[in-house]
Amino acid sequence: MKTLKVALLGAGNVGSQVARILLEDSDVLAARTGARLELVGIAVRNVDAPREYAAPQALYTTDASALVRGADIVIELMGGLEPARTLILEAIEHGATVVTGNKALLAVDGPALYEKADAAGVQLSYEAAVAGAIPILRPITDSLAGDKITRVMGIVNGTTNFILDAMDSTGAEFSDALAEATRLGYAEADPTADIEGHDAAAKGAILASLAFHTRYALEDVHCEGITGVTATDIAAAKDAGYVIKLLAIAEKLDGGVSVRVHPTLLPREHPLGAVRGAFNAVFVEAESAGELMFYGRGAGGSPTASAVMGDVVSAARRLVLGGPGRTDSTIEVLPVLPIDAVSTQYYIHLDAADQPGVLSKISALFAENGVSIESMRQTVHREHTENEGPGSAELRIVTHRAGEAALAATVEAIKGLDVINSVTSVLRVEGV
Amino acid sequence: MKTLKVALLGAGNVGSQVARILLEDSDVLAARTGARLELVGIAVRNVDAPREYAAPQALYTTDASALVRGADIVIELMGGLEPARTLILEAIEHGATVVTGNKALLAVDGPALYEKADAAGVQLSYEAAVAGAIPILRPITDSLAGDKITRVMGIVNGTTNFILDAMDSTGAEFSDALAEATRLGYAEADPTADIEGHDAAAKGAILASLAFHTRYALEDVHCEGITGVTATDIAAAKDAGYVIKLLAIAEKLDGGVSVRVHPTLLPREHPLGAVRGAFNAVFVEAESAGELMFYGRGAGGSPTASAVMGDVVSAARRLVLGGPGRTDSTIEVLPVLPIDAVSTQYYIHLDAADQPGVLSKISALFAENGVSIESMRQTVHREHTENEGPGSAELRIVTHRAGEAALAATVEAIKGLDVINSVTSVLRVEGV
Repeated sequence: MKTLKVALLGAGNVGSQVARILLEDSDVLAARTGARLELVGIAVRNVDAPREYAAPQALYTTDASALVRGADIVIELMGGLEPARTLILEAIEHGATVVTGNKALLAVDGPALYEKADAAGVQLSYEAAVAGAIPILRPITDSLAGDKITRVMGIVNGTTNFILDAMDSTGAEFSDALAEATRLGYAEADPTADIEGHDAAAKGAILASLAFHTRYALEDVHCEGITGVTATDIAAAKDAGYVIKLLAIAEKLDGGVSVRVHPTLLPREHPLGAVRGAFNAVFVEAESAGELMFYGRGAGGSPTASAVMGDVVSAARRLVLGGPGRTDSTIEVLPVLPIDAVSTQYYIHLDAADQPGVLSKISALFAENGVSIESMRQTVHREHTENEGPGSAELRIVTHRAGEAALAATVEAIKGLDVINSVTSVLRVEGV
Repeated sequence: MKTLKVALLGAGNVGSQVARILLEDSDVLAARTGARLELVGIAVRNVDAPREYAAPQALYTTDASALVRGADIVIELMGGLEPARTLILEAIEHGATVVTGNKALLAVDGPALYEKADAAGVQLSYEAAVAGAIPILRPITDSLAGDKITRVMGIVNGTTNFILDAMDSTGAEFSDALAEATRLGYAEADPTADIEGHDAAAKGAILASLAFHTRYALEDVHCEGITGVTATDIAAAKDAGYVIKLLAIAEKLDGGVSVRVHPTLLPREHPLGAVRGAFNAVFVEAESAGELMFYGRGAGGSPTASAVMGDVVSAARRLVLGGPGRTDSTIEVLPVLPIDAVSTQYYIHLDAADQPGVLSKISALFAENGVSIESMRQTVHREHTENEGPGSAELRIVTHRAGEAALAATVEAIKGLDVINSVTSVLRVEGV
């Protein structure tokens, strides 16, 4: 039986679990791949650091570069841009198959790395970088290879899903839900990358690349986080039968692709609406297959290690078979469209004066800007009428599909009306 | 560019859509596989029959056997046992890769066919036979290849899910919900295979084979349908926070595997609980990955064609690469355990006399049989007390995990109590 030398770069949460599986399940892996997977070394910064799972001490080394040069399969789980990028490039140059879970690096340098791997005829796999344990890479690249994907919508960040879910079930404000997420370990000390949507955007770029057989990077993704979502937004959405989720959306439109991350209203009965807590899910729409959803854990050492090992087994099978195999040739490169090219339904929450004629003034502004209204609900609050003049009216408007620019112009015009106290929220709606 | 000859057997709902994709998307398929996929013929019973999608007339032939002998890839979508089995065996003998969506044949003859294909060194793929459009074959065989699956639970029959969903949302009795499903085209004129669980059992055998790298056939599956599920069962389950689903379950236990199909109570917030109408979903538990779910359309021409084409593209890629590749060698064959070996929680609904001492008599019987009670709820109905003697009490009991035999003995003993009017339902509970 052939032996394949495996180099592991990094021994954090995920790396430790990958080492454990490689060492403890070597017979099963040999049966499933047709090759012995020999872990030849684990590159770490400090060989003596305490670890959750301790491999034989002799396997730890600080010389990652030497490890890479002697390996058939290189598993990069260091994270960050450098030295991960340099080591992956070295692996590619030496003809090693690369498996990585490094979404930050792929989001920035993915297109360049994929091209280098293609040119060298080696495989670069990254299942763990997309949605943790959820098998999404192979379903898209293999199972749906005879179909045409039209849209992908993913809940791909567990921290923000946990926060939004907590706000939805307890009515908490964003800051309180974030504090709770931090206390429970679902949010990092500096949660910026999560709550501003950057992590979701990195994964969105990868999902879009997979779905549309083209290569997108982080800079192609329009990104809005959840820091502006209020308890009022959540309550109003809930009241109208919606739930607010942070979605990474990659969508094929006339003339190109839109890749974007933003808080989105979904009908509560939508399959993505039921994804709770720190779970992730990717909802795929394809021409023939229709609607599909893939659900599972988006993070954590063991779950992510499972995804890494799926890539490793596939890589080993291909190497046993005798080659890296064909990567897709791209038929047409779909350009990235600006957010203005996207047309979605919108939910708008207004605080207006309770006066005759308000509704007609607002409706007229929508009409002038070519945005048509699907539904409009008014709730009048009269508690203070006697002391403070006219009461206020809460207006909840759901539009038909409209362009970003037309909607923005409408909202600006509404803000200028003297009968409007405030525009409380403007949110996109999907999945209706 | 290499050309691969593709023979299509059958031109029904799915076959027609596969023909359409092969003919209309040939450039995309060539780019994705590295080979031209040439549809060399479509075997049908009557070349002149009217069809939903009409391929060039010259492609239709009644000589399936000749077609098979000249093909690199044979797509079998005729359904039924014969002549499908004979043609697949011919294809294997001639070294053609086989793609089939024929779950009935696989359930009966799967193990023999897989062995023949292995022996001949050809690939036999069957994504479309498991859960329609849902990519489940490759996630299990590839993405989770470095993990260990412990349990698979699937809603794999759309007809029964539609019926149970209708009963749940409208309170209808089984017969009325079935009539509605028939009227809407979700149930066939003879719904036996669906409502008795046979179709789910066939898919359960395939799922179990995939998940546990062994080969199971229909006869290994313990099967109970949904004809005994009443509106009372559904209402009581709903009231207690459960939903009733027909599940195909394949589970690794000490000493073997249990494969079974039966109506099951699931907590309403379980991911499978949200699978509505005719949709399918497969819930997978793996050691490292944790909980995963795959959701999508379980039937229909286009969705199923998408799954077939995924198999065709993968087959073509392998043929371009130069070989059929390695099939798993099985490490250990896990024997099938009888239903008695399974231990689950049970939900029991009793109609008892409202007398002192009833609860203690019932509890004593549970204790005698070694079944422990998790919760017990009693609702007393006293409407008729004055005229008809003592009123009746409804008892709802959820047990801790118990074996089938112990539970059956308990229920038998309870039925013998003079204070018991009837045992209204006994249902298994999963996913708690």
